[in-house]
Amino acid sequence: MSTLRDQIAQLTTEANAVLDPAVIRTPLLPYRDGIFLKAENLQRTGSFKFRGAYYSIATLTPQQREARAIAYSTGNHAQAVALAGSMLGVKTTVVMSESAPPEKIANTKRFGATVIMAENSSFARKQLAEQLAAEHGYGLIPPYEDVKVMAAQGTIALEILATQPDVQTMIIPVGGGGLIAGIAIAAKSIKPSIRVIGVEPAGAADAHQSYVSKALTKWDTITTICDGLSVQQLGATNFDLIQQVVDDIVLVDDALTQQAMRTLLVDHRLLVEASGAITVAALDHGLIKGNQPMVAVLSGGNIAPSKIIETLTSAARA
Amino acid sequence: MSTLRDQIAQLTTEANAVLDPAVIRTPLLPYRDGIFLKAENLQRTGSFKFRGAYYSIATLTPQQREARAIAYSTGNHAQAVALAGSMLGVKTTVVMSESAPPEKIANTKRFGATVIMAENSSFARKQLAEQLAAEHGYGLIPPYEDVKVMAAQGTIALEILATQPDVQTMIIPVGGGGLIAGIAIAAKSIKPSIRVIGVEPAGAADAHQSYVSKALTKWDTITTICDGLSVQQLGATNFDLIQQVVDDIVLVDDALTQQAMRTLLVDHRLLVEASGAITVAALDHGLIKGNQPMVAVLSGGNIAPSKIIETLTSAARA
Repeated sequence: MSTLRDQIAQLTTEANAVLDPAVIRTPLLPYRDGIFLKAENLQRTGSFKFRGAYYSIATLTPQQREARAIAYSTGNHAQAVALAGSMLGVKTTVVMSESAPPEKIANTKRFGATVIMAENSSFARKQLAEQLAAEHGYGLIPPYEDVKVMAAQGTIALEILATQPDVQTMIIPVGGGGLIAGIAIAAKSIKPSIRVIGVEPAGAADAHQSYVSKALTKWDTITTICDGLSVQQLGATNFDLIQQVVDDIVLVDDALTQQAMRTLLVDHRLLVEASGAITVAALDHGLIKGNQPMVAVLSGGNIAPSKIIETLTSAARA
Repeated sequence: MSTLRDQIAQLTTEANAVLDPAVIRTPLLPYRDGIFLKAENLQRTGSFKFRGAYYSIATLTPQQREARAIAYSTGNHAQAVALAGSMLGVKTTVVMSESAPPEKIANTKRFGATVIMAENSSFARKQLAEQLAAEHGYGLIPPYEDVKVMAAQGTIALEILATQPDVQTMIIPVGGGGLIAGIAIAAKSIKPSIRVIGVEPAGAADAHQSYVSKALTKWDTITTICDGLSVQQLGATNFDLIQQVVDDIVLVDDALTQQAMRTLLVDHRLLVEASGAITVAALDHGLIKGNQPMVAVLSGGNIAPSKIIETLTSAARA
């Protein structure tokens, strides 16, 4: 009997072929001895989310593609769905809220999506998107709790192992868990000995607590600069997969993440958002136990100019 | 009889093999339809200068390698020589001046070079380096007026054509002329139909004036934010080669370059210094006549944090 994990691993191979004409095969850049950075901040729309969005829209039913794709998001997933839809000739709607950064709303429209505003809660956004999908036969593109989305994010692992087959340890940000589950499943299906370590903000440590206590836990209050990782609770499926395939989850304070953002920008010429720089912060402060070569995934690079300035002025050099 | 141009083209093949274990094969990233960016800002030490420095040090005589490599520079060449020497186990000295940015002096030391200060003139720096080389048998690593250095910079063209064989137009910054001459010679040796267009700051337009008037011209006063292109006059050899292999040189005002720096950082997550962003500025303002696909070379990304902030606050969105 095929497990969910096997299904996702198989779908990753299909996703890789579907993504081939569209995705940027982002570079694996040396950081320091034995450590490489997978620069998904250089992916289309500035984050790994493009992979899941493109594969999901490409594999909608003909009826759904004809009708429209719909998503709910306050950030990177919104932009990814908008551009992927434009590239595939599928109309898109994204449910956002006034709390989303104005640049992200503007970019989502610029990439071609119709933006609808909902009340400022993830529940309200999700409910409205699901309701419109059901009423009109739209194809719903979930942000992370989804087999296809996880499979597509797993293509990052295929690229890392193709370039650097001897990698021993992968270091991945944890938000909704789709990225780390997809990467860990794909990586271990090729190379079972690999260790996959998650990194989560100390102020949004629901996944860490769930992982350590082996009981799915919700955090009511989230305090972190890592907006892409501001998730209160893993979905049940993602939690189950993470328990199977993730070797550890470590916590990082925002101050260290901000130092890493500065180091990546000034010394490595890479603009990386907090949610992506958190993996480098964990490495720079000795929080990752594992063998080299290691690869840290820089998941995205969408930051408002004012936030870039804040990072440069407030973060002390590590 | 083999011409200088043929010699450089042949050396580029050798340089490519010598560089293989050390260089970052920098990514070719989509910018917009039909236009790609060669991200040499992600090269080791943050600029293409690493290529010429590494190849030159690697091919010094055994006696010179045993003694020391010496260079003169106020910027990217200094850091490149320092790191290349460390990687090759060759001691390095770089002659700099107090006018160099403190970060670049600090980085040059951090990468392992001994830094000697000379009077603040390119003549004084060059003279001191040549004198020390002659006295002690050191290997001199010139910044751009050199066959090996040009051949090594030409490896950028090999990488572009390997990834994107149908490229029709290459757009290259012009400072001392070593980068554009090396790239144009290598590219045209493989694909003679390719067009190579130089871009120079309007406030440092000696190469443009020389090229148009067909007479080597010196500019006494240079006014530009593109510190890497602040060269008063091409060397005679580089000028001769540029007349043979470059199809046009266009001029760009600094204000447009600063807009391009902002666009590259905020919308493309790439930190690019003014001397590298000038190619994108020329493209964005319709100054490049040529067929697509086009590739613009982003030559480097070394900028002080204060300059990044200045770019974000002063440049209006293009």
